[in-house]
Amino acid sequence: MEQQLLELGEKVAALEAGAGMSNTINMEIFYWWCTALMITIHAGFLAYEMGASRAKNVLAAGTKNLLAFAFVVPTFFFFGWWIYNAFPSGFTIAEGSEVALPWSAAMGPNLTDNATGIFWAAFALFAATTASIASGAVIERIRLTAFLVLAIVLGSAVWILGAAWGWHPDGWLTVQFGFHDVGAAGCVHLIAGAFTLGILLNLGPRHGKYNADGSINALKAHSVPLTVVGLMLIIVGFFGFLGGCIIYNGGAQWTNIYGQPATLSAFAFNTLMGFTGGIIGGWVKTRDPFWMMSCGLVGIISAASGLDVWYPPLAFAIGMAGGVMAPMVALFLEKRGIDDAVGAVAVHGFGGAWGVLAMGLFASGYPNVDGMPAVSLTGQVVGLVVLGALGFIPGYAISAVMKAAGVLRVPRDVEIMGLDAVEVPVEAYPEGLVRMAPSASDEDGGMAAAKPVPAQ
Amino acid sequence: MEQQLLELGEKVAALEAGAGMSNTINMEIFYWWCTALMITIHAGFLAYEMGASRAKNVLAAGTKNLLAFAFVVPTFFFFGWWIYNAFPSGFTIAEGSEVALPWSAAMGPNLTDNATGIFWAAFALFAATTASIASGAVIERIRLTAFLVLAIVLGSAVWILGAAWGWHPDGWLTVQFGFHDVGAAGCVHLIAGAFTLGILLNLGPRHGKYNADGSINALKAHSVPLTVVGLMLIIVGFFGFLGGCIIYNGGAQWTNIYGQPATLSAFAFNTLMGFTGGIIGGWVKTRDPFWMMSCGLVGIISAASGLDVWYPPLAFAIGMAGGVMAPMVALFLEKRGIDDAVGAVAVHGFGGAWGVLAMGLFASGYPNVDGMPAVSLTGQVVGLVVLGALGFIPGYAISAVMKAAGVLRVPRDVEIMGLDAVEVPVEAYPEGLVRMAPSASDEDGGMAAAKPVPAQ
Amino acid sequence: MEQQLLELGEKVAALEAGAGMSNTINMEIFYWWCTALMITIHAGFLAYEMGASRAKNVLAAGTKNLLAFAFVVPTFFFFGWWIYNAFPSGFTIAEGSEVALPWSAAMGPNLTDNATGIFWAAFALFAATTASIASGAVIERIRLTAFLVLAIVLGSAVWILGAAWGWHPDGWLTVQFGFHDVGAAGCVHLIAGAFTLGILLNLGPRHGKYNADGSINALKAHSVPLTVVGLMLIIVGFFGFLGGCIIYNGGAQWTNIYGQPATLSAFAFNTLMGFTGGIIGGWVKTRDPFWMMSCGLVGIISAASGLDVWYPPLAFAIGMAGGVMAPMVALFLEKRGIDDAVGAVAVHGFGGAWGVLAMGLFASGYPNVDGMPAVSLTGQVVGLVVLGALGFIPGYAISAVMKAAGVLRVPRDVEIMGLDAVEVPVEAYPEGLVRMAPSASDEDGGMAAAKPVPAQ
Repeated sequence: MEQQLLELGEKVAALEAGAGMSNTINMEIFYWWCTALMITIHAGFLAYEMGASRAKNVLAAGTKNLLAFAFVVPTFFFFGWWIYNAFPSGFTIAEGSEVALPWSAAMGPNLTDNATGIFWAAFALFAATTASIASGAVIERIRLTAFLVLAIVLGSAVWILGAAWGWHPDGWLTVQFGFHDVGAAGCVHLIAGAFTLGILLNLGPRHGKYNADGSINALKAHSVPLTVVGLMLIIVGFFGFLGGCIIYNGGAQWTNIYGQPATLSAFAFNTLMGFTGGIIGGWVKTRDPFWMMSCGLVGIISAASGLDVWYPPLAFAIGMAGGVMAPMVALFLEKRGIDDAVGAVAVHGFGGAWGVLAMGLFASGYPNVDGMPAVSLTGQVVGLVVLGALGFIPGYAISAVMKAAGVLRVPRDVEIMGLDAVEVPVEAYPEGLVRMAPSASDEDGGMAAAKPVPAQ
Repeated sequence: MEQQLLELGEKVAALEAGAGMSNTINMEIFYWWCTALMITIHAGFLAYEMGASRAKNVLAAGTKNLLAFAFVVPTFFFFGWWIYNAFPSGFTIAEGSEVALPWSAAMGPNLTDNATGIFWAAFALFAATTASIASGAVIERIRLTAFLVLAIVLGSAVWILGAAWGWHPDGWLTVQFGFHDVGAAGCVHLIAGAFTLGILLNLGPRHGKYNADGSINALKAHSVPLTVVGLMLIIVGFFGFLGGCIIYNGGAQWTNIYGQPATLSAFAFNTLMGFTGGIIGGWVKTRDPFWMMSCGLVGIISAASGLDVWYPPLAFAIGMAGGVMAPMVALFLEKRGIDDAVGAVAVHGFGGAWGVLAMGLFASGYPNVDGMPAVSLTGQVVGLVVLGALGFIPGYAISAVMKAAGVLRVPRDVEIMGLDAVEVPVEAYPEGLVRMAPSASDEDGGMAAAKPVPAQ
Repeated sequence: MEQQLLELGEKVAALEAGAGMSNTINMEIFYWWCTALMITIHAGFLAYEMGASRAKNVLAAGTKNLLAFAFVVPTFFFFGWWIYNAFPSGFTIAEGSEVALPWSAAMGPNLTDNATGIFWAAFALFAATTASIASGAVIERIRLTAFLVLAIVLGSAVWILGAAWGWHPDGWLTVQFGFHDVGAAGCVHLIAGAFTLGILLNLGPRHGKYNADGSINALKAHSVPLTVVGLMLIIVGFFGFLGGCIIYNGGAQWTNIYGQPATLSAFAFNTLMGFTGGIIGGWVKTRDPFWMMSCGLVGIISAASGLDVWYPPLAFAIGMAGGVMAPMVALFLEKRGIDDAVGAVAVHGFGGAWGVLAMGLFASGYPNVDGMPAVSLTGQVVGLVVLGALGFIPGYAISAVMKAAGVLRVPRDVEIMGLDAVEVPVEAYPEGLVRMAPSASDEDGGMAAAKPVPAQ
């Protein structure tokens, strides 16, 4: 019987080892798919940003968008990931953060570490998404090199410092104020929106946006269908993004990034309800499919801070409120001379702020773990102010310096001619696409009888 | 030794708990990705439906499509999910179905329930997909509010009642007749197609579709590339949809929705073979890439009822037969004055019926579990008739009432002018898209020398 | 106590069985999502190839692309999968390979086999991707039937034979030469590129590509936005493709296809770093977003052979080098009269060769398992030559026979008129993107002088 016990003991040990490894592998797979789906966000952003440009700037917009991604990922490898690990307590370097330095053994293939690479990848995609948020707002007049510097600062330094503070189990906003922002409404969207606002103040509006008398012209997206399909692809990718906001604990319940227990089921309920609330809010307010989809995104962002706690109809209501308000914010900014080509400040900046605030308004008292303070309106307001300032100040300061140096914006005549003519060696649509004269009704001959109509 | 045994017992208990939780988490992840991929279906439907519209109706089509999604999800929360749980045996409310009522503790974040939210989410996406099937057929003339009512009825009541009857372990069609429809050919596609047919009979054809002498005009998709790329995205999403048709049983073999053992491998074989058979069938019949992709979808639907049982070359043949026949069905309907703008009745209605029937023709006698009857042609025909009627009757009845009330269709002059001009405050393609002057030949300087040419 | 031991033994046995089954199911799920994401590659290829065509050939390109997929999948069922299993040692049939014959019990739903179907599916998608690589290069003049034969040969015979040799645990290139090509740079991309080059030599350039004096005209992609969004969707899908390049071992560490231990984390690091290096390389060299995205793909391919071993900044550098060189290769070929419409030979052929070579240059000595030789420059060069020849020879030979038989290319007047007018019964853009009347030559007035031509 001793022998039997021994054998059983060996079997149990083997089971424990196997279960541990299975959990590790399944964790790695989960974040692999999160990462893959976040690439879909970039397919979406690419479509959306090109669609939102006028035809003369389409490929310059696409180029800028791609380069933001291309520069953020390696810089996030070289210093972004380390910032997250180093600065949860403010500006003092955390012990142990050297494992995130680019020459660390963890930062490469390592048969004893099935985690760092995939966590880095998911975070690198968060970083690229954050940079892409700024990308759309500044199209059609920002200088490419200036934008790339701003994108690197935003994607590989600013937001990730904010994440260290407010989206990290040891982040001081959480440890001291119980800040709760599970789906990164503040740590990604608010920071990115505030940074973008800072840039826009220095960058100024596009040529032709405002008339001498202060009246406003619409500079229209050249392909609304491309923008809305792009936005829906972004939503697909948000399931990767939000999956990346929950921690897989082998053989135990999920936790959110702060260590509080959570379920993916709660995320599923509230993502869908916030999204659809946002679409309906956008429709009620605008009837414009571009804004309906943008407000769908606002709905997800609005519900993001409390994705783990909302009663789903409340997520719907919060999302719908966000969806109604975001176009009003966009209009408010437009009237004050801030020309945000895609409404990024309203969608991400306002949406993120509203999400953070909603958590304080509707979930105050939600308990915390490890003796950290419970959720409170105060804590959420502190987070909102800190993260907003953390985004706004560098965005404003760096772009102000660039403006003073005369490197922020393309020359006026290039802007008028269109950036593609100067920056891109190929044409977006070399064969054209012609709008038919409305007089050619559908019944009396179609193509053959129709005359092309000049666009303006 | 007693002590050792005790310790071992504790380890085993910990392993059991850990394995149970791991299985739960991995189950939750599986359906999370199913849900995410089903959002891709909606990116696809959006592209497809806008592409299939004429340019004057593009954004109205997109708006309608988005709102169908946006209204089905919350209504599915409020009553759709309960219908599924309440009515498997017909019209009597099942015991225990109150857990699916919107105020139940299961219908929200719940740390002891990692299942309800994610199941609800997957079903909500099925519901949205079902509603979207009807959406494409009725473009360019249905009134938005009328459509939204129909979409809610279809997505959050009718199809889910059908699913309770024929796509549920206790559904009476299965319990009494051995109805077998693993991939929801009948429960989603046939119901949606039949409902759509009911609407179309009352809605009537688009202005200009038929001439006074009864001859037919093609009202052409304004962008076939957008439609076919959209359809391929729908196929991507079908891997989420079909994944949602198999039950993850922690530590045990998969089962289909009826409790019969199944494998995801079988699904993989037959989805790909049905899909490619359908494409080839569509090509043989039409040479039209729009129909090739539509028939690829028909191929998947045709093979769907028996996704767990087909020998893959048979799935290919069934799919190809479906792909050859669907365009014939579309033409048959068109000749009878039924103007289905995207062929939804043929693709989903006929395709679903053929899928259900094929199961009876080629897999009669496939055994069932729990003493339920085996698959039979009779059982499949019963299912086909019941689900077809369940779809058709409310679609026809409600749209007939709407027609009588004069609220089903937009005014004739709005239709002629184009819905975008009336319903949508922005233009789809405001620039038309202007071609560069060809005088700048490809060889002598390119863009810099080119001047935009007003198309005139 | 004996009783307790017995009970404990039963629990342990149940745990072992449950863990084994859980691992199997989770493996099956992993490759299911790989397969689904690889469909995204085909949504991307479809967009990309249609976008790269001139407007007069858009739908013919789409049709060809879809049919390549549709014919490769079933032929891969009937013989492709067997080739992989039969020929790892060269041209002698391996023992046991009959399980991969289409009438084997493994090749269909099988409740005792949760693996064959899903492995087959992933490989079938690799096959379809391989065939699609050739598809883009030959647009606008190849005869559809000729292409389909070539696609089947490439997708269901040639590449999979190469995979049996160099991408299989028993492949002779690995067993004898330590060939290491984890992400299939050689086994998919190089083979496909070399095969394509073989076709292009016989197919000849498109009408109008070269002038009598040997100077070159750009035959421009009609929609660059469609191509770049398509390319980004291909990147999304590459996470499925590369996931399919790593072996899930229940309860144990991943291995690469050769049985060497590996991690998905390493794949994540190096895929993202190679991709972004490639984009930047392409930008440095061309400033053209089409090439930036193509070079992003080159970057992934360049890093693919050693995805399991690279230090991520080295993957970035290898990717960037590939991204700088690929457009130079494309230009080199273009100057020699080889008209590759999308640069497939440069992107996949050159990129794959560079990836295989880089492994020999930078990772020589990386140890192997089971007594197989370590990685060496010689071994990689042998692999490069063998796989290059394996691709080139049949591509060249079959297309030469087709050319001699006069069936390789469409008639000249069809090519000038546009393939859509002859092969496709619908128009791509019936309301816009006006097709120029052939009489309106590119030089004499363009849009203003051109009359829209009803596509007939």
